[in-house]
Amino acid sequence: MIEVNIVGTGNVAWHLAKALGSQNQAILMQVAGRSIEKLENFNNIARETVSIDHLKPADVTIIAVSDDAIESFSEQIPFDNSLVVHTSGFTAMSTLSRKHNKGVFYPLQSFSKEDTSIDFTEIPILIEAEDPKDEKTLKTLAAIISNNVQVINSKQRRQLHLAAVFANNFTNHCYTIAQELCDVHGVPFDTLYPLIQKTTEKALQQGPKNSQTGPAKRDDKQVIDQQIKLLTDPDHTAVYKNITKAITHFYGKEL
Amino acid sequence: MIEVNIVGTGNVAWHLAKALGSQNQAILMQVAGRSIEKLENFNNIARETVSIDHLKPADVTIIAVSDDAIESFSEQIPFDNSLVVHTSGFTAMSTLSRKHNKGVFYPLQSFSKEDTSIDFTEIPILIEAEDPKDEKTLKTLAAIISNNVQVINSKQRRQLHLAAVFANNFTNHCYTIAQELCDVHGVPFDTLYPLIQKTTEKALQQGPKNSQTGPAKRDDKQVIDQQIKLLTDPDHTAVYKNITKAITHFYGKEL
Repeated sequence: MIEVNIVGTGNVAWHLAKALGSQNQAILMQVAGRSIEKLENFNNIARETVSIDHLKPADVTIIAVSDDAIESFSEQIPFDNSLVVHTSGFTAMSTLSRKHNKGVFYPLQSFSKEDTSIDFTEIPILIEAEDPKDEKTLKTLAAIISNNVQVINSKQRRQLHLAAVFANNFTNHCYTIAQELCDVHGVPFDTLYPLIQKTTEKALQQGPKNSQTGPAKRDDKQVIDQQIKLLTDPDHTAVYKNITKAITHFYGKEL
Repeated sequence: MIEVNIVGTGNVAWHLAKALGSQNQAILMQVAGRSIEKLENFNNIARETVSIDHLKPADVTIIAVSDDAIESFSEQIPFDNSLVVHTSGFTAMSTLSRKHNKGVFYPLQSFSKEDTSIDFTEIPILIEAEDPKDEKTLKTLAAIISNNVQVINSKQRRQLHLAAVFANNFTNHCYTIAQELCDVHGVPFDTLYPLIQKTTEKALQQGPKNSQTGPAKRDDKQVIDQQIKLLTDPDHTAVYKNITKAITHFYGKEL
């Protein structure tokens, strides 16, 4: 039985706590945070909610706070020589305070408050630890809530997090621009839903390189020039020009 | 019973012909093209395959060729005063030859040869016609193969096609960049699959504006600067900087 603490009361802390609370192989001991109001959400899931000064050692203490607060929170933990991990894709393991046995427990998903039903079993958990014994503990803990556990180092995790920015944040903003174009011109955005679903399905089934289509891939300058003229927002124009250039270069190289 | 011709032997022609061939309310009379080899694919679906000089009038003749060939093919059709439509999102209805009754029959999907199973019932078909009687014919024909038929004008269709470039071509290239980053650093690309699926699902369920996350939305300059340093391909860097700027502006405006 693995005893777990969580430091933090945000989205990642909440979804992790819920996943840990809904199984029997690990126990969520304490959730620590600064806001009594936010801690109340965890009352029914953790054995105890506390301020960080009252945190007691557990097998694993998971710091699930924003990147820039990880270092400070890891210093504030009132015990040492116990396994402390953070949940960030971006932050190096070395950012954690030296007084702890360090590790990383990175669930690769975009968590938001609106998500009431996250299926943690599908979410990859990327593990790192200084000590092989700690790595084993983290693998065991991760496997309790996820079917996809991998060990990767800080450098790989950083690149994976950057890849996730392209695959999530940037694709989503392309959808936002598409919606703006539809809204402004009185076309229902949901007309694009089957295309959006097919795009994702094809990228996952046959690989994005094999499913690229469109004027940029064909280097169809006439269509590209006319589409640029249709755009009125300079940010949209810049995005259009740059991705089009990137696609043209990418497939031009292959010819 | 609507009699239909198709001019063209590419991906759109093939998927349209298959959809028309698998129902009983319209008859695919002739498929016309220049390549005897490509026409052979249509032998079992159409009543007859012919060169364009031998095409005979039908209720609707659908020109499914590349944008820059529409005008020329519509001129080559050896009859006039019959309803002729093209399938392009980009091209104006007026591009068709004056000798025909003009219309547009635009199936909004990214068609590729690899797709063996396209469910046409889910694909939006965007209709336009000069004559109300022709519009009715096209609506009837479209409704035979699709559950989503809409009438929009050439200007709206052009914007919708541009929106589709953002929602399909550009998102797909973001996936390609993500895959490159994974490949180069030895992380399996499929680690990102649950994130990619969730991104699409959230964009469709709660709208892309409401599901945006990440360093650009937070205007987190420290993370942004460090991520830019991780990129080694100048095209990737340009895409990163431009979409990040667009996201920062977009959500900055809202504050």
